[in-house]
Amino acid sequence: MAVVGVMRIFVFFLTFYISLYCANSAATDIELDAKAQFTHRIDSLNLLLYTFLLILTVLTIWLFKHRRFRFLHETGLAVIYGLIVGALIRYAGSKTPVLHMSVTPEKDSKYNLSLPPDTLWLRFPNRGSNPPLPNKTYAYAFREEIVDIEDNEMDLKATFDPEIFFNIILPPIIFHAGYSLKRKYFFRNLGAILTYALIGTTISSFVVGALMYGFIHQMPNLKGSFTFLDTLYFGALISSTDPLTILAIFNDLHVDVNLYALVFGESVLNDAVAIVLSGSIQNYGERYQSGTGGFETQAFFRALGDFFGIFTLSLLIGALMGCITAILTKFTHVRDFPLLESALFVLMSYSTFLIAEASELTGVVAVLFCGICQAHYTYNNLSADSRSRTKKLFELLNFLAENFIFSYIGVSMFTFPKHHFDPGFIFAGFFCAMLGRAVNIYPLSFLLNLGRKPKIPLNFQHMLFFAGLRGAMSFALAIRNTVSDARQAMLTTTSLIVIVTVIVQGGATMQLLTWFKIPVGVEEEVEMLPYAGVRSAGPSVEQICGDGEANQRDKRSPMLGEMAEPSRESGGGSRLNDKAWLARIWADFDVKYMKPFLTHARPTLLETLPVCCNPIARILTTTEQMTQDNRSRSQLDSDSDLCIEENELSYGDQRRTSVQRSDSLIASGDLGLGNRLMDTRVRVPGPGGKDI
Amino acid sequence: MAVVGVMRIFVFFLTFYISLYCANSAATDIELDAKAQFTHRIDSLNLLLYTFLLILTVLTIWLFKHRRFRFLHETGLAVIYGLIVGALIRYAGSKTPVLHMSVTPEKDSKYNLSLPPDTLWLRFPNRGSNPPLPNKTYAYAFREEIVDIEDNEMDLKATFDPEIFFNIILPPIIFHAGYSLKRKYFFRNLGAILTYALIGTTISSFVVGALMYGFIHQMPNLKGSFTFLDTLYFGALISSTDPLTILAIFNDLHVDVNLYALVFGESVLNDAVAIVLSGSIQNYGERYQSGTGGFETQAFFRALGDFFGIFTLSLLIGALMGCITAILTKFTHVRDFPLLESALFVLMSYSTFLIAEASELTGVVAVLFCGICQAHYTYNNLSADSRSRTKKLFELLNFLAENFIFSYIGVSMFTFPKHHFDPGFIFAGFFCAMLGRAVNIYPLSFLLNLGRKPKIPLNFQHMLFFAGLRGAMSFALAIRNTVSDARQAMLTTTSLIVIVTVIVQGGATMQLLTWFKIPVGVEEEVEMLPYAGVRSAGPSVEQICGDGEANQRDKRSPMLGEMAEPSRESGGGSRLNDKAWLARIWADFDVKYMKPFLTHARPTLLETLPVCCNPIARILTTTEQMTQDNRSRSQLDSDSDLCIEENELSYGDQRRTSVQRSDSLIASGDLGLGNRLMDTRVRVPGPGGKDI
Repeated sequence: MAVVGVMRIFVFFLTFYISLYCANSAATDIELDAKAQFTHRIDSLNLLLYTFLLILTVLTIWLFKHRRFRFLHETGLAVIYGLIVGALIRYAGSKTPVLHMSVTPEKDSKYNLSLPPDTLWLRFPNRGSNPPLPNKTYAYAFREEIVDIEDNEMDLKATFDPEIFFNIILPPIIFHAGYSLKRKYFFRNLGAILTYALIGTTISSFVVGALMYGFIHQMPNLKGSFTFLDTLYFGALISSTDPLTILAIFNDLHVDVNLYALVFGESVLNDAVAIVLSGSIQNYGERYQSGTGGFETQAFFRALGDFFGIFTLSLLIGALMGCITAILTKFTHVRDFPLLESALFVLMSYSTFLIAEASELTGVVAVLFCGICQAHYTYNNLSADSRSRTKKLFELLNFLAENFIFSYIGVSMFTFPKHHFDPGFIFAGFFCAMLGRAVNIYPLSFLLNLGRKPKIPLNFQHMLFFAGLRGAMSFALAIRNTVSDARQAMLTTTSLIVIVTVIVQGGATMQLLTWFKIPVGVEEEVEMLPYAGVRSAGPSVEQICGDGEANQRDKRSPMLGEMAEPSRESGGGSRLNDKAWLARIWADFDVKYMKPFLTHARPTLLETLPVCCNPIARILTTTEQMTQDNRSRSQLDSDSDLCIEENELSYGDQRRTSVQRSDSLIASGDLGLGNRLMDTRVRVPGPGGKDI
Repeated sequence: MAVVGVMRIFVFFLTFYISLYCANSAATDIELDAKAQFTHRIDSLNLLLYTFLLILTVLTIWLFKHRRFRFLHETGLAVIYGLIVGALIRYAGSKTPVLHMSVTPEKDSKYNLSLPPDTLWLRFPNRGSNPPLPNKTYAYAFREEIVDIEDNEMDLKATFDPEIFFNIILPPIIFHAGYSLKRKYFFRNLGAILTYALIGTTISSFVVGALMYGFIHQMPNLKGSFTFLDTLYFGALISSTDPLTILAIFNDLHVDVNLYALVFGESVLNDAVAIVLSGSIQNYGERYQSGTGGFETQAFFRALGDFFGIFTLSLLIGALMGCITAILTKFTHVRDFPLLESALFVLMSYSTFLIAEASELTGVVAVLFCGICQAHYTYNNLSADSRSRTKKLFELLNFLAENFIFSYIGVSMFTFPKHHFDPGFIFAGFFCAMLGRAVNIYPLSFLLNLGRKPKIPLNFQHMLFFAGLRGAMSFALAIRNTVSDARQAMLTTTSLIVIVTVIVQGGATMQLLTWFKIPVGVEEEVEMLPYAGVRSAGPSVEQICGDGEANQRDKRSPMLGEMAEPSRESGGGSRLNDKAWLARIWADFDVKYMKPFLTHARPTLLETLPVCCNPIARILTTTEQMTQDNRSRSQLDSDSDLCIEENELSYGDQRRTSVQRSDSLIASGDLGLGNRLMDTRVRVPGPGGKDI
């Protein structure tokens, strides 16, 4: 911890030194230029603050992992450090108010629209100089509407524009969630996950919204400032969960993979649902408030249409861009140049976000499904270099983004000027958030268990309930809009809920696992047995590919037959009924048409399409797909400069040999699964890694 | 090229569709909100434009590489695509003027400083509503001074704040240059590189500045608007070179490594010199102009002091942060968790930039030297996973940043509103830029050859002269400040020089190599022979480590003795005189004290420090360093989730075996060299990779 102490002192020294330095240099003469420089340095210092917080977090968390101390996850630590530093800034720092000047339009201004203008031009007298110079004109850009005139004379130290969360911080986190999804278990539990995420999140939102509205009507001081839409918005944002801490522990301790898939899958999807839902509520509010939406029911149905429309379109754009990337990487030889290939991959994924945002859809939802498609199709076409590069890149971005947002939650608790602490609202918020989670999990689990064969046991349900930590998405939605008192109270409550759940629920996970008697140290192979019969339906392709040599049984069944004719064998599965009819159709379609079209996987379209389509199938089948031996060569004379040393090249060599050996097996290897398998074999449950 | 066509149509379709959509939605009522959304969508579209440009560039360049077409580098292509799209935007797009409102201060405004305020508050009448609502107050933030009132009613389509180049685009490019520097050849040619970069760039700046000033005095239309400082600033910015294209070809064709090192090393350092020099000129200008700098000579010497002070301090901060990272990675076991380790590495490197910027130094220079130190020390301590991850991360960032800036140069040629085309100035600029490059290379080469043993032959000098392409740094410095006509003319000229040199000089490289009879396909081992005698001096450690098994002769001389007592053998080198005295001192110090202190390399400080310091040496020597067998174990039980599959793990195993075998050899392996060696052996000069 000595290092930590030294670092902290260093930060303070630096801040102090720079503030002194600023005071001096502000006396120079080209004041405007100096001011711009000063602003730039303040921005740098702000960023530096967070960089140091993250460095501290990384070093401390290393120490914790090193000592196998599992009660605090890095995000919890980031929050705690953030709170400490935020408090220091708030109470130790001096307040330099931002001065403003009130202005009125000039008499002869040509501007005559009913909207406030984008730009103001201020003719400012050049007072300082002697002899007087001509007046100068300065441009001012529109920033915001000022609601509370009294409260605005405060600086925004160590804060950022809330929109950066949606445009910079969340996209890599969400993309990574999609890209690293363990699709085998995700698809196997798809029904339950969709139920919890779609229906559960909606129920939770409305229950929380209604309850909060009821609570507020008991509190005379809040009554006037909240509408039902406000509390509903709160319900939507608080219904998204972020169980990072719990998933990290699950991964370390090898908790049952289906429980893992339920918790992870639900949390990924309910983020998407929450953001679209809150957007629809906001639109509904605007329409209703403005009076043009007609009567209320009509606006309600439009909001409902909005919700499904935006969700579906965003999903489609994400999937489409993923497929286009797959096509580009399949039909060009860009994998001969892994750097170009990785760049293409990153650019296509980023453009998915931008296209969705530019089309008034939800970029975050689009990148989620883009990530899933990239992992499902494109990943198979990538060179070994690009696979590792993209995985590691997004893993790192995800780590940095996550810890940044959590330290920001901590710091902003003290420094963000638009907090509104209301004990009543906070108490009600905690209570409703808990209740909302309960009405999501328990009733739906009961219903699911009616139809589901491997039922979700009660201890899993408890764990799902307790995995309802709130995190990045809730906070980002809460801080997005803080114009009214109501919204400020929501932000404060949301921040507190995030902080408390991440630290307390996260810290209690180990204890809870023991209480609920949830089995740990489960090997995936062992766990898989009860599901063996289902394996021939769609997602099983990944099981087989991913398991590779580890699971001997897969080797016995002839691979290609299983993939080409899943329907033939599907009758044999004893527990097939827990696969939804739609999921089976899709899996069949995926294996027969999508994978052969979008990846180098066998069977080819020549084998799956009817004979009449042979000319088209011929075009859409690459030579790699036909003669997969060619491939190992073409990958070898790659951009070998990019590898570090010859050992890595020999690794590349080996890898390719294994591609040759196991034919299409590795070529369509499962992204998430590879990890876990290796994990299972080489690591004792100990100072485990981060997997989410 | 069909893909390209389809993509282009897609972009236009999208733009069209969205502009239609916008027109509709602008008619809704919460106009302010709609406006914010509109702005966000325009921002997204702008980014999307560049993302698509980059995707196009990646796909086209793949096609070129695939067909071994070497006349156009990806950056050249990015410029060309940028120009095309820029022209389309300019001439096809409609101009939507940004409306402004002129305002005057309110009578009773409390604001009374001589500076324009940060914020304006506008009380805006709520005109649209009936019955009239109370007036609203809007906040406006300071943006810029308006110089040319006539010219400002134009939108800033597809443009960005110039500061993003310095804060986002350049740092990864420059860091990567430092991190991927082939230090062996860089240090061997250090004298020449420093001469060209420090002295040469300064000479070139002053020659260009003076000549341009002379030219301008012949042109009556420009005479009034330029001061000597303006032209000197132009001299400084145009003196930085960016020979990406040429280096890529050098790398593909295995041009002599010393020529490569000269071109690369000089271009890296002259970027640093140019940015600090232009900053000093600007400061000098401000001080001189404001009159407080006293008489001119005093201001001149202060500018000189500025230049050396800022350069040295930035260098020291960069080096210090690199060393701190090395210490953190050496004395903690953070490498057991590669993700944490990589995050630490990235955060420390980024904070270097921020610290330098916050201290009014030059962040770009700091990250350059930070990158060099990270490669020289920290890299040796990193786990295999982090090595590959950080290398690949920065390579990708560099690629994206580079191509972004070049497509921006293309697009902004047409869309940036502050261009000033003056044929006279442009012509003079081209002529002076060429002449400035000539007065840098030829006289200094002559002087260097007086003292240098392996002389720089004339054909190398010609190649160095022609490698004077201008690029990212020149453009970023030119676009930073465009308030006056003079600065706008500089921007236009710089943009044109960048475009022409990148396309024409880049395209002519193959031809020039033939004309100048520069040998290609040189194997490093062959080339190394004439230098054999020098090997015992400092940088040779890297040679030896990097060469490893490739160069048998190194194996014969006992490694440790050579490292521990370089001075003993140094007399034997026949060409020792071409190593500067200072370089030898440093190399000795580095091997004896710095490397043992900062890395896991042998000899340890216990062996190199005097006996009296044993207690300290004991503390600073890790057990890994003493018994390197331990190390292979501690790295193996790492955060294995992060590895992709078992093949990579087994690669890790192997690697460690080789560490055990060759003791400290691999532990202090050279970053850049590994690449090239491998390169030399496995790749035929063909569709080569990118190495810069």
